[in-house]
Amino acid sequence: MRSVYHRQLAELTVQLGEMCGLANEAMRRATDALLEADLDAAEQVIREHDRMVALRAETEREAFALLALQQPVAGELRAIFSAIQIITDIERMGALAVHIAKIARREHPNRILPDDLRACFADMAGVAIALGDSAKQVLISRDPQQAARLREQDDAMDQLYRNLFSTLLDEDWRDNIPLAVDAALLGRFYERFADHAVEVGRRVVFIVSGDLPTPDEISTY
Amino acid sequence: MRSVYHRQLAELTVQLGEMCGLANEAMRRATDALLEADLDAAEQVIREHDRMVALRAETEREAFALLALQQPVAGELRAIFSAIQIITDIERMGALAVHIAKIARREHPNRILPDDLRACFADMAGVAIALGDSAKQVLISRDPQQAARLREQDDAMDQLYRNLFSTLLDEDWRDNIPLAVDAALLGRFYERFADHAVEVGRRVVFIVSGDLPTPDEISTY
Repeated sequence: MRSVYHRQLAELTVQLGEMCGLANEAMRRATDALLEADLDAAEQVIREHDRMVALRAETEREAFALLALQQPVAGELRAIFSAIQIITDIERMGALAVHIAKIARREHPNRILPDDLRACFADMAGVAIALGDSAKQVLISRDPQQAARLREQDDAMDQLYRNLFSTLLDEDWRDNIPLAVDAALLGRFYERFADHAVEVGRRVVFIVSGDLPTPDEISTY
Repeated sequence: MRSVYHRQLAELTVQLGEMCGLANEAMRRATDALLEADLDAAEQVIREHDRMVALRAETEREAFALLALQQPVAGELRAIFSAIQIITDIERMGALAVHIAKIARREHPNRILPDDLRACFADMAGVAIALGDSAKQVLISRDPQQAARLREQDDAMDQLYRNLFSTLLDEDWRDNIPLAVDAALLGRFYERFADHAVEVGRRVVFIVSGDLPTPDEISTY
């Protein structure tokens, strides 16, 4: 009985890692779609989100069954409790990638970003995807130091996000309102993706230690 | 023993309702701050978010304790499982109100919105707050029909959100890029607030029926 239980717990962790991997892959492809006007990549991200939705439902059912059929306590209960929240964070990460892919698809075959913004988004995407990869690793490793470092990694995103808005609001900037609107939303999508990855790190700290680190202060945007 | 348990379960529901009430009140004040350049309202929303964060932590602890100390099953387990997710939805609703309040505070004493956009945001805020109020009611009533209707109410928000972007992207529109950027983000904040309220409704349907309605398709923005 216990061994079935522990196999199910391990399976839950594997599924969270798989979900996070899907979200990161979606974000990689959505970024290709955006930066390279890659329509196939955009279509794939949009099409494959169904897998994320299905995996979310399945993982929730398994977390629910573990609570219903076993009597998890202490660290194991914290792991299931956190999984319930992490599932929604990761599903959002995937949904944010879909938002980016849909903007890229709408503008195909044009690349929507001029060179200065393109460089800015390449940097933001790099940080977002690195955070997503770190989140996936800490879901598996449960290394609390590595989990806590996600917040430091996110400082780079906050800086890039501020830079983006400085660029957008710069009077010398010659581009148009539709582009500014898209860029503001795209920036927000990358920044939120990173926030959700940091939140996964917070939850892993809770699994290991029982303490939930205080969330960051809410920024102006 | 059972009576303590049922009192704790009832208390959890009360706390979710209280959290949702705080989020709705924050959104009302943030909207006053935005539409009327009301600095006090903006400051209050920002300052009082600490209460939301504290209440979130307390409610999570109580949900955890219920799982750890009781062996909830069936509808009671669904209620606690859903509470864990609803807590994060409601905390986000409060955080979105803070984002709006911070934009209003930054621009004080100016009203940032020209008349046509002001009318658009008054409508969006009206729908968002009505959805928040409905979410609070269904948390208490657990009426599945009323919970399912949140999604229909949200159709009005989707329409207003599309109208906002049509206005922003209209070539005849004479306003400036900083305003377009703010308006795009503000629109997103109201629309996400509404989405989280709808998600609360989905979770209440799950508590009552055990079935989780399929989420809506992801929109272009």
